Amino acid sequence: MKNIILQTDFGTGSVSVAAMHGVCLSVNNDLKVHDGNHAVPEFDVLSASASLIYLLPYWPKGSVFVSVVDPGVGTSRRSCVALTKTGQYIVTPDNGTLTYIEEMFGIKEVRQIDESVNRLKGSEDVFIFHGRDVYAYCAARLAAGVITYEEVGPVYPVEEIVRAEYIRPAKTADEVSGMICEATEHFGLVGTNIPFGWLKEAGMNYGDEVEVIITRKDEKVLEKKMKLVETFGKVAVGEPLVFSSESRTVMLAINRGNATLEYGLSYGPEWKMTVRKLS
Amino acid sequence: MKNIILQTDFGTGSVSVAAMHGVCLSVNNDLKVHDGNHAVPEFDVLSASASLIYLLPYWPKGSVFVSVVDPGVGTSRRSCVALTKTGQYIVTPDNGTLTYIEEMFGIKEVRQIDESVNRLKGSEDVFIFHGRDVYAYCAARLAAGVITYEEVGPVYPVEEIVRAEYIRPAKTADEVSGMICEATEHFGLVGTNIPFGWLKEAGMNYGDEVEVIITRKDEKVLEKKMKLVETFGKVAVGEPLVFSSESRTVMLAINRGNATLEYGLSYGPEWKMTVRKLS
Amino acid sequence: MKNIILQTDFGTGSVSVAAMHGVCLSVNNDLKVHDGNHAVPEFDVLSASASLIYLLPYWPKGSVFVSVVDPGVGTSRRSCVALTKTGQYIVTPDNGTLTYIEEMFGIKEVRQIDESVNRLKGSEDVFIFHGRDVYAYCAARLAAGVITYEEVGPVYPVEEIVRAEYIRPAKTADEVSGMICEATEHFGLVGTNIPFGWLKEAGMNYGDEVEVIITRKDEKVLEKKMKLVETFGKVAVGEPLVFSSESRTVMLAINRGNATLEYGLSYGPEWKMTVRKLS
Repeated sequence: MKNIILQTDFGTGSVSVAAMHGVCLSVNNDLKVHDGNHAVPEFDVLSASASLIYLLPYWPKGSVFVSVVDPGVGTSRRSCVALTKTGQYIVTPDNGTLTYIEEMFGIKEVRQIDESVNRLKGSEDVFIFHGRDVYAYCAARLAAGVITYEEVGPVYPVEEIVRAEYIRPAKTADEVSGMICEATEHFGLVGTNIPFGWLKEAGMNYGDEVEVIITRKDEKVLEKKMKLVETFGKVAVGEPLVFSSESRTVMLAINRGNATLEYGLSYGPEWKMTVRKLS
Repeated sequence: MKNIILQTDFGTGSVSVAAMHGVCLSVNNDLKVHDGNHAVPEFDVLSASASLIYLLPYWPKGSVFVSVVDPGVGTSRRSCVALTKTGQYIVTPDNGTLTYIEEMFGIKEVRQIDESVNRLKGSEDVFIFHGRDVYAYCAARLAAGVITYEEVGPVYPVEEIVRAEYIRPAKTADEVSGMICEATEHFGLVGTNIPFGWLKEAGMNYGDEVEVIITRKDEKVLEKKMKLVETFGKVAVGEPLVFSSESRTVMLAINRGNATLEYGLSYGPEWKMTVRKLS
Repeated sequence: MKNIILQTDFGTGSVSVAAMHGVCLSVNNDLKVHDGNHAVPEFDVLSASASLIYLLPYWPKGSVFVSVVDPGVGTSRRSCVALTKTGQYIVTPDNGTLTYIEEMFGIKEVRQIDESVNRLKGSEDVFIFHGRDVYAYCAARLAAGVITYEEVGPVYPVEEIVRAEYIRPAKTADEVSGMICEATEHFGLVGTNIPFGWLKEAGMNYGDEVEVIITRKDEKVLEKKMKLVETFGKVAVGEPLVFSSESRTVMLAINRGNATLEYGLSYGPEWKMTVRKLS
């Protein structure tokens, strides 16, 4: 019996999540169904993707992740189950949610859900909640061994998976740059997709002062010198810092403060961060 | 061992919910205790009832639902366990929370909780958290088989169950009407208690344009023509739509927008929606 | 297999909690991992402590509580596992989080986590998420029986545990006083650390009118007469009341209102409540 982890953009106060749990347990009451993250920003497939790559490495191999960020629900986007090269399953609309998965872990195979089999019986007249009627149901059948991965539905080429546009991380001899992927209100952490190890390759080390430049649509929002350190407590309260996130990407914060709010930052394909070595 | 599903109006950030989980597991550590919905609006028994009818059909038969929306905690309202005709149990103050249950699924039997037996020992001096001391505890004993349903306490007539006032759905040859039961801030979905199938009986079909009228205390708040469609993506971004909720009731939304906020809507017995066929 | 209960100050919408669940299940997939309270106010170790003493008595003996309120993450504060005299384990940074535990339940023994053994392999380059890499991982090993309590790491004197400053409850012949420990926005409940039983010892009984005085840094914020009653419904809607919280401490509320917001109250070591007998 495989673990099922549910993530949605339904918000933390949605009763819909519990309906998904119930559908899973109605398939097999011995299943273990867990909550991943129900605060994915509405309709934001890149954030859904970021949330998945954050979680995947920390769950047992063979876990079945269900991601329901589905602005096109009921329209012609494919519903799929992807199998990563690391042995995890992702049940999701194929709408960009798999973008980072492929780059980070690789996708071994992807199959379109055959709704004639793997859809909750009697739900055919409901068009707006595939999270319950298709994704949770299909995931439960897979996790419980009612169906094999092959029985999810027909395989299709990995190349056909929908990719969302984003800013790829880049590196020169003395700077690194990439996209701001999250800017939380809680704690005010500002995360990027820049591998933290690249800082060293660009000549920046713990203890150094570095320059951080943030742009939105190429317009400068922030330009500031700050310390590159291991953790918050290495700078004074109220001071900014650059450090490694728990996913080993470049992150910006203010010790006991809120960088998101104080600097007026947000995230997504319009937001770019550059960290530059000071000579 | 039956599933237990907890719902409260405690909000998503309440530590009290975890005390209820702990009480259940202290009765029997093999119990499976799940979170239903802790964002029921404060003191709102009709919303509690709506949340229950949303969840009940998707959980295994014999599940034990605990609903703690209890403005009269510690006063003389009855504490009860209802058994639905569909074979689910609901542990709740008898304060209106069962209103829709009866209509939707029927209630086979209702029993008043005998607190001399089914109350956490030593909690008699606490008057404000029956959710923990009576409902969770009694539910756990029932779900774990420590007591039979008969041992919950004395049966009383189903007719004596407290009903809350609400607007019943109605239908004519060319219009349907009913109460707005929810108007979420997240996604901005506006749901009613009007069976979606009634639209067809009143001559309205997918693809039609229909007229929506919303009143608060008989005063008009919205009057607008919109499309009756299967799902969001069938209208342009920013356009309103009427469609079937996942519970097969009439629902209103704006594609990628927020009908609740944009139209200034809310829910409850003051709020009525009418959908009228256009000639 | 012992229960694990997670509490953090990450907020209700954090994906990080699910990474902690995953780490636990990767240690042993049969573990039962529960959510305690993820809405502990940011960095507030006294609130973390209050949340723990609220939960501990209601969970089976031998439960393992993980508390991640860790403003000094990555700095030199100790990481520890405390064993209470009531037989529960608490895995936490030793930063004040254990303050109330000791007074309420007593601490039998405390051990510093040996990170050379009880830290997730390969996480040594991450300095900001000990909740995942140290606390959840170590808790899972303890709960699953991979390690004994002795194998957590070296014991250190209970006297060395870090205590946070707070206002201790006090009592005279006709008044009681103490710290406001919580003032929720939801329901607007205002809780203290004054044992409810002390009211009787100071000559105040159910049905009496009493005087409530609230100060912030010794400046008066509220002075008001109100009824001492068993529960909300014993006063009119909109009226304030003093009553016993579900933890048997003195609490203040407004029936169907919100005392926190209406009276402009908050909590912490600056906030003191006095309840005085009226002659």
